Amino acid sequence: MRTAAVIGTGLIGTSVALALTRRGVAVYLADRDESTLRTAASLGAGDVSEPPVPVDLAVIAVPPAHVATVLGDAQRRGLAAAYTDVASVKAGPQDAAAAHGVDPKTYIGGHPLAGREITGPLGARADLFDGRPWVLTPTAETGRDALNRALELISLCGAVPVVMDAADHDHAVALISHTPHVVSAIMAARLEHASEDAARIAGPGVRDVTRIAAGDPQLWQEILSANANAVADVLEEYAADLNAAVSALRALAAPDTDKRSSAREELVALLQRGNAGQSRIPGKHGAPRAVYAAVPVVISDAPGELARLFAAAGAAGVNIEDVRIEHSPGQPVGLVTLQVAPESAEPLTARLTERGWTVRS
Amino acid sequence: MRTAAVIGTGLIGTSVALALTRRGVAVYLADRDESTLRTAASLGAGDVSEPPVPVDLAVIAVPPAHVATVLGDAQRRGLAAAYTDVASVKAGPQDAAAAHGVDPKTYIGGHPLAGREITGPLGARADLFDGRPWVLTPTAETGRDALNRALELISLCGAVPVVMDAADHDHAVALISHTPHVVSAIMAARLEHASEDAARIAGPGVRDVTRIAAGDPQLWQEILSANANAVADVLEEYAADLNAAVSALRALAAPDTDKRSSAREELVALLQRGNAGQSRIPGKHGAPRAVYAAVPVVISDAPGELARLFAAAGAAGVNIEDVRIEHSPGQPVGLVTLQVAPESAEPLTARLTERGWTVRS
Repeated sequence: MRTAAVIGTGLIGTSVALALTRRGVAVYLADRDESTLRTAASLGAGDVSEPPVPVDLAVIAVPPAHVATVLGDAQRRGLAAAYTDVASVKAGPQDAAAAHGVDPKTYIGGHPLAGREITGPLGARADLFDGRPWVLTPTAETGRDALNRALELISLCGAVPVVMDAADHDHAVALISHTPHVVSAIMAARLEHASEDAARIAGPGVRDVTRIAAGDPQLWQEILSANANAVADVLEEYAADLNAAVSALRALAAPDTDKRSSAREELVALLQRGNAGQSRIPGKHGAPRAVYAAVPVVISDAPGELARLFAAAGAAGVNIEDVRIEHSPGQPVGLVTLQVAPESAEPLTARLTERGWTVRS
Repeated sequence: MRTAAVIGTGLIGTSVALALTRRGVAVYLADRDESTLRTAASLGAGDVSEPPVPVDLAVIAVPPAHVATVLGDAQRRGLAAAYTDVASVKAGPQDAAAAHGVDPKTYIGGHPLAGREITGPLGARADLFDGRPWVLTPTAETGRDALNRALELISLCGAVPVVMDAADHDHAVALISHTPHVVSAIMAARLEHASEDAARIAGPGVRDVTRIAAGDPQLWQEILSANANAVADVLEEYAADLNAAVSALRALAAPDTDKRSSAREELVALLQRGNAGQSRIPGKHGAPRAVYAAVPVVISDAPGELARLFAAAGAAGVNIEDVRIEHSPGQPVGLVTLQVAPESAEPLTARLTERGWTVRS
């Protein structure tokens, strides 16, 4: 790939342009908003002049509702040899493109699973896609040339291609991205008027459950709206389990012993399904979390403590797969839990203990 | 405090006993299960012989439903000068204690907010309570002596005392602990039958939302059952927001333009309430998360990389408040996001860049 056009210079479009520019591709930028376009160009994302048509690939980085019209227009102008988009839903834009009579041979839908809290070109980063999944949704009509150009784009951006059907993609993101966002936001909404004391005793559990609720409401409204039915379907299944949980809890609070016993079983069964579902989520490297062993180490809050700890782990030749730091309000000590390969846990514990660290054994 | 009795040598009781023993207190253990008791004693948690009555404090570490009877029996035997318990709910045991005619002057309810996935004495740790909140629920009848003995216990365990009313406590833990657990479990349950592709593209968001869903179903059923009505109340509020979100999403998927516009507003308002609630949760040291600045650094997966990174941060005199590591399946590079004080972000970025690290600016 030597030349590319990026239409839409928001967070994703500008990040794609920066990644391609960094790899020596000549990138031509376009955006209907002149100031957004100039900002992207000033960041070194590419050129605002007319491209020498056709470019090798055009990346359409506009909201889902505009993909089909922008794609149709670009094809009529003969802008590129192939076209892809980066919208977070895929079936809608694909159907709209067909309805607009676009050439399906040179177009392939795409969705990089990457983002930031900051929107617009100023949030853009050349390494935004490093190691992230990037879904492609080819159809029977997609040409091999369009597929290969999109795969080259993904490779140049440092992302990992995953090929899926458009409808499957939309259901998958409803399940693993859009629904968790709503679930987290509704939990966080409960805390808006929590007492000072309740907030004071909040710990790492509720903090993790509500972390993504900090996302931008306007942006997430757009994302959810574009996949509204698929998200609503999952939320309705969620609501059914939630109502069953409420009924079970009410039964457990009531004096009827028979009902209590079956309510207990229902609750355990639900929590067991939660166990099963949780284990489906890959940790780092796609490995289930359970393959790592936890080594919890007590640390003080002085600068350099973590450095000393990681240096000691590094000296033991142990690769740390994940880290969790827990501190409580006003406390000078905390707990760092290191996730390591199971065979590394014992030597690491021994080495750290030897060096004076307190490892919870 | 020189002598203490611990009745119930499960995870919490044995951890209390280990913490007190470590601090030189003579601890006398009791458990109706002989093998559990022997296990705790073999861990060095205390003595299984009869205590020289009265001991300075008795810690009743039995399930909520048994606190009142065990307390009443201990008082009749004149076991201790003062009594506390560690049950995760407080109003029920307190009411039951009153009904059993226990002496309210020498009893104070308690709840250390600490736990592990592993239950029983083998999971116990002397430092389980280090820096964790430990709620006390004195009543108007609680004697000052009982309060001060419980405060000394908390201090010896390295925890942070928080005084609350029993009913307030139960509502607070329903909100910040029990409901998040159910919310996380029901989300995780949706993933049980997720496609391989959906699991493959799952990222850090859904991973955090469902982390606590890995908890032990039987233990959590007991915890939820003991606070059933308070949890059900919060879940019903949750369900109301959930149903409203589903309605808004269905409206957004429908062709009626008027409805779409108000549905969009409803969805944004819900997500904004999520923002507001999320900001109520303390980060480390009780500070809201927003006071930290994020410094995202690209790292390779080689052993020692994190050590080098933390050593560089330590050399810059910067205290790292929190860490997040992100990797994608099969990728040799990942992203480590360091949370630091805002004034530290710029010098840290400069220092790391100087040393050849790639910091996303």
